[in-house]
Amino acid sequence: MAQKLLSNINSPAHLKQLPEEDLARVAQELRAFIIDIVAAKEGHLGASLGVVELTIALHYVFNTPDDQLVWDVGHQAYGHKILTGRRDVFHTNRDLGGISGFPKRSESVYDTFGTGHSSTSISAALGMAMASALKKEDRKHIAIVGDASIASGMAFEALNHAGVSGADVLVILNDNAIGIDPSVGALKEYLTKTKSGKETGSDNIFESLHLDYSGPIDGHDLPLLIKELKRQKSLKGPRLLHVRTVKGKGLKQAEIDQVRYHAPGKFDKITGEITPSDTSKLPPKFQDVFGLTIVELAKQNDRIVGITPAMPTGSSMKIMMEELPDRAFDVGIAEQHAVTLAAGMVTQGLVPFCNVYSTFLQRAYDQVIHDVALQKLPVVFCLDRAGIVGKDGATHHGVFDLAYLNCIPDIIIAAPMDAVEMRDMMFTASQGLDLPIAIRYPRGRGKIVDWQQPFTLMEIGSSRLLHEGKKIAVISIGPIGTLIQGVIKEEQLSVTHLDIRFLKPIDTRALELIFENYDHIITIEDGTVVGGLGSVVGDLAFAKAYQGKVHKLGVPDSFMEHGPTADLHKIAGIDKGTVLKLIKELL
Amino acid sequence: MAQKLLSNINSPAHLKQLPEEDLARVAQELRAFIIDIVAAKEGHLGASLGVVELTIALHYVFNTPDDQLVWDVGHQAYGHKILTGRRDVFHTNRDLGGISGFPKRSESVYDTFGTGHSSTSISAALGMAMASALKKEDRKHIAIVGDASIASGMAFEALNHAGVSGADVLVILNDNAIGIDPSVGALKEYLTKTKSGKETGSDNIFESLHLDYSGPIDGHDLPLLIKELKRQKSLKGPRLLHVRTVKGKGLKQAEIDQVRYHAPGKFDKITGEITPSDTSKLPPKFQDVFGLTIVELAKQNDRIVGITPAMPTGSSMKIMMEELPDRAFDVGIAEQHAVTLAAGMVTQGLVPFCNVYSTFLQRAYDQVIHDVALQKLPVVFCLDRAGIVGKDGATHHGVFDLAYLNCIPDIIIAAPMDAVEMRDMMFTASQGLDLPIAIRYPRGRGKIVDWQQPFTLMEIGSSRLLHEGKKIAVISIGPIGTLIQGVIKEEQLSVTHLDIRFLKPIDTRALELIFENYDHIITIEDGTVVGGLGSVVGDLAFAKAYQGKVHKLGVPDSFMEHGPTADLHKIAGIDKGTVLKLIKELL
Repeated sequence: MAQKLLSNINSPAHLKQLPEEDLARVAQELRAFIIDIVAAKEGHLGASLGVVELTIALHYVFNTPDDQLVWDVGHQAYGHKILTGRRDVFHTNRDLGGISGFPKRSESVYDTFGTGHSSTSISAALGMAMASALKKEDRKHIAIVGDASIASGMAFEALNHAGVSGADVLVILNDNAIGIDPSVGALKEYLTKTKSGKETGSDNIFESLHLDYSGPIDGHDLPLLIKELKRQKSLKGPRLLHVRTVKGKGLKQAEIDQVRYHAPGKFDKITGEITPSDTSKLPPKFQDVFGLTIVELAKQNDRIVGITPAMPTGSSMKIMMEELPDRAFDVGIAEQHAVTLAAGMVTQGLVPFCNVYSTFLQRAYDQVIHDVALQKLPVVFCLDRAGIVGKDGATHHGVFDLAYLNCIPDIIIAAPMDAVEMRDMMFTASQGLDLPIAIRYPRGRGKIVDWQQPFTLMEIGSSRLLHEGKKIAVISIGPIGTLIQGVIKEEQLSVTHLDIRFLKPIDTRALELIFENYDHIITIEDGTVVGGLGSVVGDLAFAKAYQGKVHKLGVPDSFMEHGPTADLHKIAGIDKGTVLKLIKELL
Repeated sequence: MAQKLLSNINSPAHLKQLPEEDLARVAQELRAFIIDIVAAKEGHLGASLGVVELTIALHYVFNTPDDQLVWDVGHQAYGHKILTGRRDVFHTNRDLGGISGFPKRSESVYDTFGTGHSSTSISAALGMAMASALKKEDRKHIAIVGDASIASGMAFEALNHAGVSGADVLVILNDNAIGIDPSVGALKEYLTKTKSGKETGSDNIFESLHLDYSGPIDGHDLPLLIKELKRQKSLKGPRLLHVRTVKGKGLKQAEIDQVRYHAPGKFDKITGEITPSDTSKLPPKFQDVFGLTIVELAKQNDRIVGITPAMPTGSSMKIMMEELPDRAFDVGIAEQHAVTLAAGMVTQGLVPFCNVYSTFLQRAYDQVIHDVALQKLPVVFCLDRAGIVGKDGATHHGVFDLAYLNCIPDIIIAAPMDAVEMRDMMFTASQGLDLPIAIRYPRGRGKIVDWQQPFTLMEIGSSRLLHEGKKIAVISIGPIGTLIQGVIKEEQLSVTHLDIRFLKPIDTRALELIFENYDHIITIEDGTVVGGLGSVVGDLAFAKAYQGKVHKLGVPDSFMEHGPTADLHKIAGIDKGTVLKLIKELL
C-alpha cells in the first residue's frame, strides 16, 4: 500500500495536523506498514495490530512527549515507534544495533519508560504523575496496560495506591482477553462480563479501588476513541478507561489464531500465511524436551503436576495441559503466586514442576528464598530461556539466575548440556529430592536429534568428564558445553573438558583433581561472570591455593543489548572463536 | 489469672471437648497468658490479642491439623501456638533454641506453612487445597490474612487464581485496618465502607473475583464466629469470610496505641504501661539516622522524596511523613510498586529515597534489575535491617542483599560503618548520581553519640584506611567495622583495617595495595559468605595472583535461626571472639 499519509508523519506533530477524517486512512497505512515489515523481519505482530487506532488516537489527542505514555510490556508499541520518528528505522527492529522491540528510554524521548516485563506501567506512570504534581507541571500521564498484565500483582499494588493518590494518572485497560496465551483468572472473567457505559454502577471493581472508571468502549472506533480521550484529557485524578480491542486486528489469520500470530515468524504479508519450514528432522527445542518429558514422567507418577505463569505455549507446558488437563495449571502472569502455590503443593506430597522463564523468576525471588528454600520444599523449577535470549534483548536475557540462586542456601542448581541430560535431570528431580532444584536451559534447539533415551538417575552434584587432555581444563555449564565438545573434536585439541552440570552443590572433588593437574582452567557459562560458575570456581581455586590461572568466560557485568543470539555470544566472548583463540594462546 | 481451662489444653482435641459456653473463659485465659509472657519476654503483642476468639473458634470448629490453617505473616499466631501443644514452651518464644515467633513447619504439624513475609498464605493454602483435590482427600484449607497483607500484589494473584480454581479454600480476611502501621490504599478504604451481610450484593470486590463472600462479622463474638465457621465448614469452593477485629483487643493501651503495641517491648502486664527506658544518651538507631537525615536533606533539596512500603514507623520514614507530608509516601505492603514508582519519579528529575527492609527487597528484585538498574535510574535505596536481625529469625535476616545486588550491572552498593558515614552516603546520593545506589545498614543502634556532623561528599567506590599494621589486613563492610576497630584498639594489634564502604564499585586500588603488602587478609561482613564481600575479594585476589591467604568471615551458606543478634553473630563467626582468635593465630 502506498504510504501517502504515513510517509509524511515524522513525529506526532505531523499527525496532529491532519483532519480527523484522515485518521482512518493513517490507521490503514500504519497497519499495512507493520505487517509489511514484520512479515519479512519477524517480531511481535498481534499486539501492535490491536492498538493501531488507540495509538493514533493517543498521539492525536495528547501532547506527547510532554504528556507521557507508558506502554506496558511493550509488545504493542510498534505503531507508537513508527509514529514517533522511527518509521524509517523500523526495519532494523530487534536487529543488532537496530531499534529495540520494546520501548526504550535511550532510543526516543517518546519512550518515557522502558518496558519488557509486564505490569510495571501503572507504577511508573503514577510515579511520573506524582512527580509532576510536586513540580506543579501540567502534563498527563497515561499507562496502557493489557488485561493479562493488569491481573498481575504488581499492577494491583499500583492501582491500590493510585486510587488514593489523587494523582492525575490515566490507566487505559487494553482488554483483548489475551496476553501471549489467552488470559486466565477471575478478573478476566469479570472483565468479559463488564457491561458498557455507566450501567456498571458504583460497585465496579475499579471504582471500588477509587478509580474513575469509563467504558468499555470499542478500541477500533477511532471517532469514539478520540472523543473519549478528549474527555479524559479534560479530567484529573486517577481514572481507568476500559477499551476493548482485538489482538491481530486487520490481518484475518492473526485475529483467528491469536496465539500463533503473537510473534509468528516470517509470513506472507498478503495472505497472512506463515512461511512453512520443515523442522521435523531438527533436534528439538529445549522447550519441547521439557513439555514432552514432563508428560512422560507425569504418566508414571501421579504426584507430578505442572505450573506455568502465563507461558503455556512458550514453555510447551501446553503439551501437558492438553494431555493431562487436571494436572497442569496456567496461573496467569503471577510468578510470585506460582512459586508459593508450588510450595503449598509440596507440603501435601505433590511434585510440582514450576516452569518460569529465567528472567521472570526475578519476580518471585523472595518466594524462592522464603517459601521454598527456607522450608526445604522440593519444588522443581524449570528455568526456561536462561542465558542470552537474542532479539528480545536486555529486558529478557536470563543471565542472572546462576548468581542470584547460588547465594540461596538449600537449593540445587543444575544446567543440562543437552536434551538427554535435561531429561535425566527432570527424571532425577521427579524421584523425590530433599531440596528444591532449579534446572536452567536456554531458548531454542539443542543438537541431539535422538534425544528420547531411557532415563538415568543422576547423582546430585556430580560432574561429567567428557574429554581428557593436558595443561588446560575447560569447565562448562549448560549447552555451551556442546560448543566446547565441537571445538575440541574439530581442532583435535588435547584439552580436558568437564561438564560440571551442577553449580550447587558443585563437584569439589572433580575440581580438586583439576586444580592438581592443570595449568589453566577456562570456565564458560551463558550467564553473568559475577557470581556464576566462574566466580565459584575462582573462589574455590583460591581457597585450594591453586597455582594456575582461571580464565572466566561469561556475560560481562553490563546489560547486553538485543540482536541475534550468535552475535551476542560473540560480544560476550562465549563463542567458538573466542574459546579457540584462548585455548591456542594457552597451549 | 489462674489458667484453669487453658492449662488442660495440650492440643486442639482438648479444646474441642469443652462445651461452647466455656470458650469465652478460654479466650480470657489465653489473652492473659499471652499478655503475661509477652510483657516480660517481649514479642509481637497486638496481632495475637486481636485474633484470640478467631483462633479458638478455628481450632474448635475445624479438624486441625487435618484441616490446615495458614497464618499470613504469622505475628498473630501466638494463640495458635499455645493451643497446639506449645503452651509450656511459649516462654521460650524467639529465644535462641526456643520456639519461633512465626509459624514454622519443623516446629509443629499444626504449622502447615512457615510465614514471616506477608501475603503468601492464600497461595500456599490454595496449593494445598488443589493438592488435596487431586489426591481426593477431604480436608479444609484456610488462609487467615490481614487487610494490609491482602492488599499486596501476591495476595491478589492468589485470589485471582482461587476464584477460577474451584478449589476448596477459605480465605479469612482479618480486617483490623492496620498492619504494623495503619493500612493504606484504596482497598482499605473500600473495606472500611463494606456493609454487613448480603447487602453488598453481587458487585462486592471479592465476589467480582468469583469468591463466595460472607461478612463482615464481629471477630470477637465467639458464638457468631463458631456458627459462621460451622457454616463455612459445610461449604465448598473458593470463599472469603470478612471478619472485623480490633488489634490489641483486651489490653486497653494496646487497643488505643496499636502501632506502639504491635511489639511494645517489656510492659507491665497489669497496667499495660510500657517499661520506660532512658535512651536519650545512647547513640541513635540507624533508623533514626535515616529518618532525621532524609528530612535534613529534603529541606535543602526539594527534589528529594521518601517512599516506604508499609514501614513508616520501623524505618523512621514517619519523621519525614510528619515534617514533609507532601513528599513522603507510605504505599502499603507493595515493594514491587514502591521500587518502580521510585523509578518513574526519577524520570521526572526527583531524587526518591526508597526505604525497604533488606529481606523485603527480595520481593522487588526484578524491579531493581529491570526498572531501575537497566535504565540507570538513580533511585536511592536505603536497605534497612540488613544483616542478622535477631529474634525475628530466618525469614527476616537481611543477609542476601550484598550477593543478590552484586550480580546486577549498573548499581552502586554501599554500607556505612557508622552513622556519620551513613549521613555522608545519603548526602552523596542526594547530590545526583548517574546510577542507582543501595545503602545497607542494620537494625538498631550504632556506637556514635555525636553523629550529626557536617556532610562530606564521598567519592563513589572509595574505601577508608582506619588502621595500619603489618602482615594482616582486615577488610570490613558495614558496622561490623566498628567491632574490628574496637578489637584492634583494645588489644593494641598491629593489624591493618580497611573500611571498604562500597562493594560495587569496589576500591581495587586499595585492594591491590593490600595484596602486595600482607600475608593474610580477613574479610568480614554481616551477610552471606557466598557472593558477598568475601567472594569479591577472594575472586580479585586470585585474579591478581595474590599469594597470601584470604579468610572469609560472614554468615555461612545456611539459613540462620532466631535468637539474640549477639548470639547469632557468634554462631556465624562474625563476633569479637572469633575475629580475635583468628588474628592471634595468624600473628
